[in-house]
Amino acid sequence: MPTSRFRSDEPALDSFYFELSDKQLQPLWELHGLLTPTPRVRAIPYRWCADDLAKLGRRAGDLVPIDRGGDRRVLAMANPGLGGAPFISSTLWAAVQYLQPHESAPAHRHTPAALRFVLDGEGVYTLVNGDPIAMARGDLVLTPSWTFHEHHNPGDMPMMWLDVLDLPVVAALDAVFFEPGGDSEADRTEIPRSTAERRWGAGAGLSPVGTPDLPPHSPLLVYRWKDTDAALDNLLEVEDTNDVTVRFQDPSRDRDVMPTMRCEMRRVNPGTTTRRERQTGTRVTAVLDGSGTVVLDGESFDLSPGDVFVVPSWCTHQLHARTRLDLFTTSDSPVLEALHLHRSEEVDS
Amino acid sequence: MPTSRFRSDEPALDSFYFELSDKQLQPLWELHGLLTPTPRVRAIPYRWCADDLAKLGRRAGDLVPIDRGGDRRVLAMANPGLGGAPFISSTLWAAVQYLQPHESAPAHRHTPAALRFVLDGEGVYTLVNGDPIAMARGDLVLTPSWTFHEHHNPGDMPMMWLDVLDLPVVAALDAVFFEPGGDSEADRTEIPRSTAERRWGAGAGLSPVGTPDLPPHSPLLVYRWKDTDAALDNLLEVEDTNDVTVRFQDPSRDRDVMPTMRCEMRRVNPGTTTRRERQTGTRVTAVLDGSGTVVLDGESFDLSPGDVFVVPSWCTHQLHARTRLDLFTTSDSPVLEALHLHRSEEVDS
Amino acid sequence: MPTSRFRSDEPALDSFYFELSDKQLQPLWELHGLLTPTPRVRAIPYRWCADDLAKLGRRAGDLVPIDRGGDRRVLAMANPGLGGAPFISSTLWAAVQYLQPHESAPAHRHTPAALRFVLDGEGVYTLVNGDPIAMARGDLVLTPSWTFHEHHNPGDMPMMWLDVLDLPVVAALDAVFFEPGGDSEADRTEIPRSTAERRWGAGAGLSPVGTPDLPPHSPLLVYRWKDTDAALDNLLEVEDTNDVTVRFQDPSRDRDVMPTMRCEMRRVNPGTTTRRERQTGTRVTAVLDGSGTVVLDGESFDLSPGDVFVVPSWCTHQLHARTRLDLFTTSDSPVLEALHLHRSEEVDS
Amino acid sequence: MPTSRFRSDEPALDSFYFELSDKQLQPLWELHGLLTPTPRVRAIPYRWCADDLAKLGRRAGDLVPIDRGGDRRVLAMANPGLGGAPFISSTLWAAVQYLQPHESAPAHRHTPAALRFVLDGEGVYTLVNGDPIAMARGDLVLTPSWTFHEHHNPGDMPMMWLDVLDLPVVAALDAVFFEPGGDSEADRTEIPRSTAERRWGAGAGLSPVGTPDLPPHSPLLVYRWKDTDAALDNLLEVEDTNDVTVRFQDPSRDRDVMPTMRCEMRRVNPGTTTRRERQTGTRVTAVLDGSGTVVLDGESFDLSPGDVFVVPSWCTHQLHARTRLDLFTTSDSPVLEALHLHRSEEVDS
Repeated sequence: MPTSRFRSDEPALDSFYFELSDKQLQPLWELHGLLTPTPRVRAIPYRWCADDLAKLGRRAGDLVPIDRGGDRRVLAMANPGLGGAPFISSTLWAAVQYLQPHESAPAHRHTPAALRFVLDGEGVYTLVNGDPIAMARGDLVLTPSWTFHEHHNPGDMPMMWLDVLDLPVVAALDAVFFEPGGDSEADRTEIPRSTAERRWGAGAGLSPVGTPDLPPHSPLLVYRWKDTDAALDNLLEVEDTNDVTVRFQDPSRDRDVMPTMRCEMRRVNPGTTTRRERQTGTRVTAVLDGSGTVVLDGESFDLSPGDVFVVPSWCTHQLHARTRLDLFTTSDSPVLEALHLHRSEEVDS
Repeated sequence: MPTSRFRSDEPALDSFYFELSDKQLQPLWELHGLLTPTPRVRAIPYRWCADDLAKLGRRAGDLVPIDRGGDRRVLAMANPGLGGAPFISSTLWAAVQYLQPHESAPAHRHTPAALRFVLDGEGVYTLVNGDPIAMARGDLVLTPSWTFHEHHNPGDMPMMWLDVLDLPVVAALDAVFFEPGGDSEADRTEIPRSTAERRWGAGAGLSPVGTPDLPPHSPLLVYRWKDTDAALDNLLEVEDTNDVTVRFQDPSRDRDVMPTMRCEMRRVNPGTTTRRERQTGTRVTAVLDGSGTVVLDGESFDLSPGDVFVVPSWCTHQLHARTRLDLFTTSDSPVLEALHLHRSEEVDS
Repeated sequence: MPTSRFRSDEPALDSFYFELSDKQLQPLWELHGLLTPTPRVRAIPYRWCADDLAKLGRRAGDLVPIDRGGDRRVLAMANPGLGGAPFISSTLWAAVQYLQPHESAPAHRHTPAALRFVLDGEGVYTLVNGDPIAMARGDLVLTPSWTFHEHHNPGDMPMMWLDVLDLPVVAALDAVFFEPGGDSEADRTEIPRSTAERRWGAGAGLSPVGTPDLPPHSPLLVYRWKDTDAALDNLLEVEDTNDVTVRFQDPSRDRDVMPTMRCEMRRVNPGTTTRRERQTGTRVTAVLDGSGTVVLDGESFDLSPGDVFVVPSWCTHQLHARTRLDLFTTSDSPVLEALHLHRSEEVDS
Repeated sequence: MPTSRFRSDEPALDSFYFELSDKQLQPLWELHGLLTPTPRVRAIPYRWCADDLAKLGRRAGDLVPIDRGGDRRVLAMANPGLGGAPFISSTLWAAVQYLQPHESAPAHRHTPAALRFVLDGEGVYTLVNGDPIAMARGDLVLTPSWTFHEHHNPGDMPMMWLDVLDLPVVAALDAVFFEPGGDSEADRTEIPRSTAERRWGAGAGLSPVGTPDLPPHSPLLVYRWKDTDAALDNLLEVEDTNDVTVRFQDPSRDRDVMPTMRCEMRRVNPGTTTRRERQTGTRVTAVLDGSGTVVLDGESFDLSPGDVFVVPSWCTHQLHARTRLDLFTTSDSPVLEALHLHRSEEVDS
């Protein structure tokens, strides 16, 4: 006998609800919370502290072999509002990944896109479709949708970095595909400059002619801190502001680095308080350098190097820089914009 | 004291899991089913029969006043695989809406976009941002994201139609906004041709010069069955096939009618069996006319006029037309394509 | 011994000029008129009268066989300012073409694009890459760049129409290619609806799925007067103005019908005087119906059905409609816009 | 009495031709050479020798004051096929410009776009809309359409560079506008890095957020030789070829640096003979370094540093590098491509 989640004191209606249930139908007038004045966001503003991430990363390195499962030694930031789901928001996955010396994480590919941002250390290299990319502090490394990737730590020091994926979006769209790679290569000791950088990284506005067809993501797979740092300094020189941002873009086209994730680096001068604003979509921010405060929907969080915080959709956010703040932010804005669901506004204090 | 959903027989690991949980972190190696070889789709293939929809629509009309809640008398098709969620798949909402004679559904707007497809009857008109659109069998009517809309039935016959919304996508992206409208207008007895049609509907390739700025959706808000029917006949004449499809497009640009939903009308000649194929993303199909069979992941469903069926992501589908089939299909393909997550393939029988 | 077009009274300079000339160099300081405050336009505003065109077309029909040369019996409008060049302006070619009963103009193709606008009569059909297109009053027919085309008059009445080509632009870019066609087909007596119309002409926003790749021009090769006329009427109903314009567009994309020529139809209500304006680029206008006046750089020209006039670049123009004016205009605006050389402004009276 | 350029031995026709002439019409069948199988190109392949350009530039510097006329001390390369017109082809203007120590060329702007390529020397700076750009060997400097520009030589050495403009195209389209600037600034002794470079030149794929609206041309106004040189070296490392090319692009978008001109730098290894090819449109090439040969429509020209040669439309060209050749080429390809008139092919030897 069918049961229904809808009940009524009126017998005719109650019987009708059972019949609806039997035919896989539901009465809209008994459904609530579907169309809300502003987004009903389950994820809450939250900050993960650098010390906790570092300490627990090391513990994972000691306790858990890399091949225990999932091919990766990864600690996922689970937003307390999501009821135990391993996501930092309804649209993004964020995690720290830890590699011991002489370990490697084997090759695979998946439709969810990933980025790696290095908050500290160096020594690991990532192979993206076979192109080796050395990773160091401040570098942004892309492993876009459906590219094979593996991580190697040929050195004598462990290394940890931040991973962000669009996995919840791809899962919500029922579009997750996964494929294990073949045998991973043996560790290299010399990591050459990546082919991607030699083709696309020579300088602004210099494009190779006659190279392979462009993929749907940036053909440049790594953005080096030296360049980003210089770009921020240059902008502070020429713009009349204490708060500048550089966007990482596909150098071959007017697009974000990947179809689903925007990446930006922001530099806020000491003593500066930024505009109070909010927008649709999730922002995940990592502190590369500096200290200060972020206020998220009225709650204040102290910031130190290595901290990671999440700004859920439509949550107001405002920064105060005690020392010069360098912040890496990734967001799902390209998704919101592509679907014309992007809204943003400044919020009065 | 924190609890953890992860447990281990090894005391050190168990204690580590508690600590992770305390810091809102989760161990990837204990998470399963995140990255699957092919999409793990919870929605199942399913068909709602015209008779059930008609009968239960009428029952709702008799039992439930229009103002009971949600502003609309709507029966939502709840996919049996989704555990009680009122969605036809993880990305689309589909429902039948029923208006009694001389009833109206009041004005509101929301960021989820909606379309209305009329499987039978006539007499209702919809106001979209104040522009009146008479609705009749075979017509496709758009109420795009954030446009005010209200429905009026000034006649003496009830009317029912199919509603499809991208609500689950917009909700998953934490981007639902809703606003009630002002007072709805009184019923009109004369429904003029819509301004949208007079600006944009005169003929293929004729664009008004000097009209208002274009919205992010089609400025043409209704596609009339007479035109669609003729287009399908014309295509069958000039193409060497028994299976033709017309896509409803924004006449001002090379785009789908709305950023999140594709709409198509397909005509399959009697006796024809179509290619067996699958793709990422959900397809919702309504039978306007004809009879036949659809096979969804190996399961066969009979089709009659007014039936509605769902093809979840990566589900193989194949049609057989007993009589000439006219099928309206809407899908989330624009979303998958915008994010470069679209895959499709022909599947060997 | 080299000669130079530059001379100087100073012997050293004179000798230098000779040396420059010997090395194929020229001194900028002796060149004048290269960079002028506003465009130095050699073409002048001009109008060709319908009566002259009709009478001389008939005379050509009587005197000159179709195969005398150039494959076409065409009278080119030669702008009096261009020193004998057979062009209506520095960028466009305009002409009338005349076909006697049972004559045909053989197949060929060329990179210059052409359009045909029928000011009067009917009976001729044009084959574009083999697709037959019947031509009648008010119809716009495209024979885009590098499409084979031939004209047939199977009927008993002569017919004349307006041809406009982008020939001067293509010639200035050293990009003219020409190829004669194979044997032309025999006259047909029944002209079916063109394949192009059956694929693309069913209605606004209805696009065939699965048809051949799109060419760089509109896949719809003819725009029928019935549709254009209705579109203008509709616009006059919904817009608060006495002066409406419909642009002919590629129905598959947001583009002009061809990469080099814009086509528009304008309807001006009786008694209306339009804005006085000017823009870069040439406009060629033909009067389909109505009478009135056009003022071009201060000079007034009476307008009657069948008249053709040219508005050269940066020439001010203003219309006055005595009766309802229907005007077809083609321009090189897509060229100016693609190269970001388009300027337009309203000019105070 | 009207005269006609067309005559006939048949009195009726002769009289008809007079009448046509009187009405500003011309008979197509008497016009020849309008539609040719391949482009009828008046410009011929030609090379200007570095020594001649240097010697005559110096002579101009000695003989002609900067303010003699045209605001610039410029020697225009006049293609011998163009009957005395001061253009290097029907679409491009090319010239050398010479500034004595402590001279400056005053500010003005014009719709024709210009580029400056430095074949030797340094010391001059150009102000583009007030932004100072120091110029040195191998640098490409843009002064796009309608940007104010002035040149200053604050140093003690004269300097000469190559100018290329799209002037013939803009003139053919009747779209030349010119405006003198205000007072030029006094010479600076310190030339800072340009604002354009500090905003857009930090590195590949790093875009400033929140800067002024983008112009229709590259916001980066100079491409430095150090970067170009490195890009070519990198490409030679990763591509399996002896012949690599870098295109200068708008770093903010997938476009050429300006809407009308493409710029490329090519490096050909010693001993390499390139493919023999041709395309529509003009190419102007300057030898930055190296020696070799270019064969243009079968005629061989020796190449030395500082030489400039022109490849007219549809002229076959093939290079042989004796030593490593570094070649700067600019072309009107964006124009041909925008209008879908671009053709290219490899030509069998």
